[in-house]
Amino acid sequence: TQYADYIIGVGNKPFDIRSIGILPGVRDIHRVSDAYKLVSKKWRVEDTRISLGDGLEIGTGSFSIMAGPCSIESAAQVEETIAHLKAAGVRIMRGGVYKPRSSPYAFRGLGMEGLKLWHEKAREAGIKIITEVMMVEQIEPMLEYVDIFQVGARNSQNFNLLDALGQVDRPVLLKRGISGTIEELLQAAEYIFSNGNERIMLCERGIRSYEGAYRNTMDINAIAMLKAKTHLPVIADPSHGIGLRQFVDKIALASVMAGADGVIMEVHGQPEKAFSDGQQTLSYQEANRLYSRLRQAFELREQF
Amino acid sequence: TQYADYIIGVGNKPFDIRSIGILPGVRDIHRVSDAYKLVSKKWRVEDTRISLGDGLEIGTGSFSIMAGPCSIESAAQVEETIAHLKAAGVRIMRGGVYKPRSSPYAFRGLGMEGLKLWHEKAREAGIKIITEVMMVEQIEPMLEYVDIFQVGARNSQNFNLLDALGQVDRPVLLKRGISGTIEELLQAAEYIFSNGNERIMLCERGIRSYEGAYRNTMDINAIAMLKAKTHLPVIADPSHGIGLRQFVDKIALASVMAGADGVIMEVHGQPEKAFSDGQQTLSYQEANRLYSRLRQAFELREQF
Amino acid sequence: TQYADYIIGVGNKPFDIRSIGILPGVRDIHRVSDAYKLVSKKWRVEDTRISLGDGLEIGTGSFSIMAGPCSIESAAQVEETIAHLKAAGVRIMRGGVYKPRSSPYAFRGLGMEGLKLWHEKAREAGIKIITEVMMVEQIEPMLEYVDIFQVGARNSQNFNLLDALGQVDRPVLLKRGISGTIEELLQAAEYIFSNGNERIMLCERGIRSYEGAYRNTMDINAIAMLKAKTHLPVIADPSHGIGLRQFVDKIALASVMAGADGVIMEVHGQPEKAFSDGQQTLSYQEANRLYSRLRQAFELREQF
Amino acid sequence: TQYADYIIGVGNKPFDIRSIGILPGVRDIHRVSDAYKLVSKKWRVEDTRISLGDGLEIGTGSFSIMAGPCSIESAAQVEETIAHLKAAGVRIMRGGVYKPRSSPYAFRGLGMEGLKLWHEKAREAGIKIITEVMMVEQIEPMLEYVDIFQVGARNSQNFNLLDALGQVDRPVLLKRGISGTIEELLQAAEYIFSNGNERIMLCERGIRSYEGAYRNTMDINAIAMLKAKTHLPVIADPSHGIGLRQFVDKIALASVMAGADGVIMEVHGQPEKAFSDGQQTLSYQEANRLYSRLRQAFELREQF
Repeated sequence: TQYADYIIGVGNKPFDIRSIGILPGVRDIHRVSDAYKLVSKKWRVEDTRISLGDGLEIGTGSFSIMAGPCSIESAAQVEETIAHLKAAGVRIMRGGVYKPRSSPYAFRGLGMEGLKLWHEKAREAGIKIITEVMMVEQIEPMLEYVDIFQVGARNSQNFNLLDALGQVDRPVLLKRGISGTIEELLQAAEYIFSNGNERIMLCERGIRSYEGAYRNTMDINAIAMLKAKTHLPVIADPSHGIGLRQFVDKIALASVMAGADGVIMEVHGQPEKAFSDGQQTLSYQEANRLYSRLRQAFELREQF
Repeated sequence: TQYADYIIGVGNKPFDIRSIGILPGVRDIHRVSDAYKLVSKKWRVEDTRISLGDGLEIGTGSFSIMAGPCSIESAAQVEETIAHLKAAGVRIMRGGVYKPRSSPYAFRGLGMEGLKLWHEKAREAGIKIITEVMMVEQIEPMLEYVDIFQVGARNSQNFNLLDALGQVDRPVLLKRGISGTIEELLQAAEYIFSNGNERIMLCERGIRSYEGAYRNTMDINAIAMLKAKTHLPVIADPSHGIGLRQFVDKIALASVMAGADGVIMEVHGQPEKAFSDGQQTLSYQEANRLYSRLRQAFELREQF
Repeated sequence: TQYADYIIGVGNKPFDIRSIGILPGVRDIHRVSDAYKLVSKKWRVEDTRISLGDGLEIGTGSFSIMAGPCSIESAAQVEETIAHLKAAGVRIMRGGVYKPRSSPYAFRGLGMEGLKLWHEKAREAGIKIITEVMMVEQIEPMLEYVDIFQVGARNSQNFNLLDALGQVDRPVLLKRGISGTIEELLQAAEYIFSNGNERIMLCERGIRSYEGAYRNTMDINAIAMLKAKTHLPVIADPSHGIGLRQFVDKIALASVMAGADGVIMEVHGQPEKAFSDGQQTLSYQEANRLYSRLRQAFELREQF
Repeated sequence: TQYADYIIGVGNKPFDIRSIGILPGVRDIHRVSDAYKLVSKKWRVEDTRISLGDGLEIGTGSFSIMAGPCSIESAAQVEETIAHLKAAGVRIMRGGVYKPRSSPYAFRGLGMEGLKLWHEKAREAGIKIITEVMMVEQIEPMLEYVDIFQVGARNSQNFNLLDALGQVDRPVLLKRGISGTIEELLQAAEYIFSNGNERIMLCERGIRSYEGAYRNTMDINAIAMLKAKTHLPVIADPSHGIGLRQFVDKIALASVMAGADGVIMEVHGQPEKAFSDGQQTLSYQEANRLYSRLRQAFELREQF
């Protein structure tokens, strides 16, 4: 790993771990009975904080806001968004340049070109970039333009992609699958971690349920439970979690109380004209009101 | 109804509502296109507040806490619980005397005898009683001992029971079905309301999902959406919503931020010895800490 | 029970069952570790066959067809349906006189009056009646007019109703809850059985899933598994299982291969004019074609 | 495409299609209002049959059996399986050389080496190979050794992989996502088809539901509905559909009656020693009995 070498022993025979612990060069040894090992709190008790540079950190003890449009659409849109974020003190901008779309006929994003123009403007402004990567071949070209790689819900069990992101020196935000279990999410994180990349955030973004009144069903329980099971930061995505603009603020605030270390949310100058996901995107004004409330709710939570 | 007479017109033909509006004796007329009518905010814009007497009200603008054991077990347990609630300023006590149990061999509650002993002690202490009613025949005998009738998840579409509760002068807390939709819950409330009882609270208590890591999946979205769709108060049940003691506080606090008008939660002197649901029940100490946090979170929300 | 007395011992202490087995008056003793006991194949190895009189039996080794309208609508409709069934050699007629409806404003059935007129015509024709009972008070008046009581999906955990049906001398068809588990269904049957009524059929009628393309998701697995877990007959309801007329035949035939002992299906002279469920109801012509195919499929299955 | 060029027009403006239809070079023109176009029966009325060479075809009018182990394990295992298939008249062998596994510590398959040894023996025996491809980079090396590419449930919305498979001259069996909708499955197929590869089979392999009694819940409705919505062949996977060996036969037979054009199933010389999925794998003897029954059930269905 970027810190030190692990040896994970997996096996079926009873075993006295001390026989390894006394070997030369072994600093520490743990026995972990879950299907995931390294991401478990049983293995690492202290919560992981992820540094993005420039004094920016994500994890227990702080609350991180990542905001921006669903899709990067134009230079003007990027500039406008950055101005909005700067004014609001938000330091991480989300946006898609490769878009997974159910239909092959829908807009699939501006690709590398979009990423480069975004990167140029974000660097100037001191804003960090989080964006989705969809396949192994995209990692290398995207690497220098990206601060956090996002793995989308549809790729949460794309194991080759997870393996490859484990070998890269960039934090990864891993979204839960559309009907992924807690355990599958932790095992997916284990793919990345066991390949050597320890800077992983988990993201609850709503699950698929029988209820058709919203796009997804935000699983608030998952946030509370993940914080107990793993040392990794947990981020909430209230925009996808309910999928209806009018309720995004309440779901975001609920996520704070459930223990989230941050939110990733969709914001756009004119939500009704966004290329995608407009119905779940906040306007700048709505977003500003929510940022302020999130910070107050976090402050209250920290006093508990 | 207890307030005035409604005439609900249901039909398929186009219609000029003014032809009714001008008839003598008609005070007001509304057109409502949802499958539910009277419980909709389209019909009544102002939120319903439910009075329990003694200055106690439930609904928008206040936050109500209902706490107590899953099952009423003994006089000593009732006394102890009441002492706990009084000290904490909680004025409504929950407890089951008729218990719906999946297995016929499980404890089914103390019945009317338990209710009477509970009632005696609660009246003295000025504590209100909420308890589950399971069948039409129980309503009449229970009536004088109960302040709020609870309809459980398994009875949320027991339409005869709903009809009968619509004809009774007691508030009703109606739980969402185990996999009930928002619309089904509102239609179930419509059964009660259209029979004349307007004092209904809706309760989100978690839904059944594929995720096996918790007993139920708290649908935080439902709380936000119900507050927008109906004028009725919305109560959260965090105990059943996740089913694991360790997380009940976070889910309760999240529910406040989602817009809940109160919580109903399980508390017991010795949760590990409770006759039922012990694994999701808070101790008095845990409950006290949570009551305080809930009030702070509500106060913050009201400032938003 | 109608056959003999059971004593069910439920407890947590280790126990030598022989100490009971040697007591006078004890004929047999079983240890059953599931949450359900009497309905388990571990307790009774031989499959239960239910006699309806007149040589009509339901259970392993034969295939039973129950058909008729969703709702009993009129004397003419009853006569027409009976004529259709007689011609097709179908001996059990389904039909609702008490209808559980999500909305209080929907048609709720003709009640006892409808049942009586139906009964008169059915008796003449030698046709048996299966119809839904919704509450305890309905059992007594319905008893003499009904050959099989049906418990609907919404009442599958109405434990008082189950208790009461356990004390009645009529077979019961128990539908699985809208999102009921296999275990809950078996435990619900245990309520009836442990009260003394052993003539129970279980009915798979589709479950609620995330898929919105059909009304319910027929759980074909459940049919195969129930036949292995319990000695009770298992009936398929393909009409509710998919909820779309066009596919009812395929789902019915699939159920035969999965091991069902019969089907209950909706048929109507003019499905498009049915008071309820018309979109999942077959015409007489469609039904006749299906009866014939079901019998052929059953015959093939019995050769396997 | 491999047959001719399509132009798909997607847009929001009302449009007179005849203005295109009269242009030179246009052979045919269709208006399709679903989210999927080319895979819809509205676009192509006649069912697609897929030729694998050597007179082997898949689609309406015949019933195809694909059988083999979950994972390719050794040369001996391959030989033994081929002998079994030859004797049974089964011409397509399934087997995994790249295995998607929830845990990074589980067996991930023998890779290209395993595929090559399998291919050598299969070619000799005249047996076709279907195996899973997990990422774009694997397509090229696998191409000459594979007769049908399988896309697994976890990759059913790996859109880059689908795009790439659309440009390859090999049939594709596309599995439904773990909680994929009918519409998502058809749109995923549209990705492949619109890239030019029309030889696609859809596979129902069970969905994730709340029911924990089986690995997945076979969605028998999906088979019936897919056959009505698309001209592509539909294959059932009863092994994953229920995940329990004891019931695979019943689910497979049910799938025939629901309209499946074939099955893909797991079979192994010693299921209890299989590297993966042993609990849902049939022995040769069990499989032989099932092949025979499947053929009889198909024959009966074709007479209907």
